[in-house]
Amino acid sequence: MVSSNSLFDSSVLGNSVASMVPDNHKIRPLELTDYHKGYLECLSNLTVVGNVTEQMFGDSFEEMQRTGSYFVVVVEDLASKKVVASGTLLVEQKFHRGCGRVGHIEDIVVAKGQQGKRFGFTIVKQLLEIANATGCYKSILDCDAANAPFYEKCGMENKGVQMAVYAPDTASKKSLL
Amino acid sequence: MVSSNSLFDSSVLGNSVASMVPDNHKIRPLELTDYHKGYLECLSNLTVVGNVTEQMFGDSFEEMQRTGSYFVVVVEDLASKKVVASGTLLVEQKFHRGCGRVGHIEDIVVAKGQQGKRFGFTIVKQLLEIANATGCYKSILDCDAANAPFYEKCGMENKGVQMAVYAPDTASKKSLL
Repeated sequence: MVSSNSLFDSSVLGNSVASMVPDNHKIRPLELTDYHKGYLECLSNLTVVGNVTEQMFGDSFEEMQRTGSYFVVVVEDLASKKVVASGTLLVEQKFHRGCGRVGHIEDIVVAKGQQGKRFGFTIVKQLLEIANATGCYKSILDCDAANAPFYEKCGMENKGVQMAVYAPDTASKKSLL
Repeated sequence: MVSSNSLFDSSVLGNSVASMVPDNHKIRPLELTDYHKGYLECLSNLTVVGNVTEQMFGDSFEEMQRTGSYFVVVVEDLASKKVVASGTLLVEQKFHRGCGRVGHIEDIVVAKGQQGKRFGFTIVKQLLEIANATGCYKSILDCDAANAPFYEKCGMENKGVQMAVYAPDTASKKSLL
């Protein structure tokens, strides 16, 4: 049972990023009703979404809400009532660093036709604010080398390489992922 | 309240990796009592552990157990009753790929003096087995470029770069992390 339409309490957003979005736009937590506001269509600009029914969306939303570890942020265009950008912070509990936490920045996406409004930069800054608010001692992300300069503008630096392997039954679909 | 001494149900380990460890060693889920079996000392070969009391360890263990997303695996030397290697799989829920999951391989470590027994390889293989068992369509990790050839032997391939930023209050300790 989803306990709230909002994935997480908006107080964790803080106040420093809200003013970075244009008039008639709002940066806020993902809401369950974003299924009907084009969240998945926005996400499809980044990766293959596949068939996600409202029930599946709700189940995943509930699971994320239950753990309390997921901070999916969206920018909504209040005129069109559409999600135009999104990104996720997954907060990982560690034992090291005095049982510290690490923030994983994931799935930064800006909808087609919405470039040039600094939504990507704004989302990353918002996720880093949440990482600080939730006590992450560092935040990390993986990207194509071509996108590294963008993340350097967000204050990040290259620290290594990403390695990946696909599950056997998805190996043939690798190019789609 | 910790519900079991084992972080997760050992059935998720499967059977294909258990035989890869030497006699008198066992690969198994992290247990709460590994606090007294040198788990943190093992981890200190990878990173700064800091001051972690038994209470702090228990609290983090409980949080990981509550979410059900953390699969910390250890190799125990049954003679010395010491943890000699460890690694973590964090399973992330996504909305894309039909509400798929991605496995994050974290904190692969082998204790000093225990090299040459393929523990690192064994741990990675075990985590990839868990990733398959828990429905991850892919598994990823970050490492120094110098360690990429090791992970290639584990079946992984380079897919991008890792970017990172440290929280303002830890920036001065960056070299320790």
